Amino acid sequence: MKLQRVLQYAKTLLSESIDAGDIAIDATAGNGHDTLFLTELVGEKGHVYAFDIQQQAIESTENRLKENGVSHLATVILDGHEHISQHVQQQIGGAIFNLGYLPGANHHVVTKSNTTIEAIEQLLQLLKIGGIIVLVIYHGHEGGKEERDELLKFVSSLPQKYVHVLRYEFLNQKNDPPFIVALEKVKNFPKE
Amino acid sequence: MKLQRVLQYAKTLLSESIDAGDIAIDATAGNGHDTLFLTELVGEKGHVYAFDIQQQAIESTENRLKENGVSHLATVILDGHEHISQHVQQQIGGAIFNLGYLPGANHHVVTKSNTTIEAIEQLLQLLKIGGIIVLVIYHGHEGGKEERDELLKFVSSLPQKYVHVLRYEFLNQKNDPPFIVALEKVKNFPKE
Repeated sequence: MKLQRVLQYAKTLLSESIDAGDIAIDATAGNGHDTLFLTELVGEKGHVYAFDIQQQAIESTENRLKENGVSHLATVILDGHEHISQHVQQQIGGAIFNLGYLPGANHHVVTKSNTTIEAIEQLLQLLKIGGIIVLVIYHGHEGGKEERDELLKFVSSLPQKYVHVLRYEFLNQKNDPPFIVALEKVKNFPKE
Repeated sequence: MKLQRVLQYAKTLLSESIDAGDIAIDATAGNGHDTLFLTELVGEKGHVYAFDIQQQAIESTENRLKENGVSHLATVILDGHEHISQHVQQQIGGAIFNLGYLPGANHHVVTKSNTTIEAIEQLLQLLKIGGIIVLVIYHGHEGGKEERDELLKFVSSLPQKYVHVLRYEFLNQKNDPPFIVALEKVKNFPKE
């Protein structure tokens, strides 16, 4: 396989964006796989902030970090990602979202486009130049297509002078496979 | 810039697909830029076949190869790419199409979806496992959107068991920028 699959490409983008010593954000901690991966990228001099609105996700993530001996490299926060800027004010190296529901939990608890968009807006302010926000968009569940379309409308409207917005998607797979939208900040936004 | 621009990503994909000693195809020779790039990839033990339906393109491409001292590494053919299999029967390492019109020439001479699809079908048979066909889709000209949509319908219908089809596109750029569709052969098609 020469064309990277979607989840592998998400990791490649995060690796290119986040340097050792950076602050990184997992906006949807879920079962903690990405939080753990981010701790490897930021290393002992960096830090990861992971957000989730479900207690089950917080516990899974904290357990995964503990099992891997890296609990000190991450702060896991029970709060919606639309409140990221209340918890993090430093410059960040990169961020990831897995949109949809928590695997293995209640499928009616899903991410929503309005809070996701609020979180992206806050992260774009905090993001370093050259930093990347990766959205892995699962859209097969109920309401997934509306969320996807609202997000695509939002990211397509971002000014290309400040952000480059890439869509990376396999076209001939069955059952609504996830795809990636990646946002790279190329210039600081004007002060409001 | 960490997210590769479209033309750079096309080159990256060709580099990953085509090895020294391979046969490679430029299905739309145009001004010969890609033909020259392909000769660098295949090297002295490989060969490039470049196709175009316009005499002007053939001459531009031959001149570019001559100036770079690599005329012996490529055969430039005045014929439509839907006839590729009449000229090439060997296994190929990879291929590229730039869809649209020849820059600097008559804008009414454009690629058409039906002949492009015929060419892709022939190339998929010739392509090695792990080989990639790169389509750079320019769709801003008259008829470009119909061609784009017919091609997307075709490639989306290819069976994922044999071919992976990736779309790589920047979403927030103005003026119908080109995007990439890349086809990677992952398994031989059943004999007919």
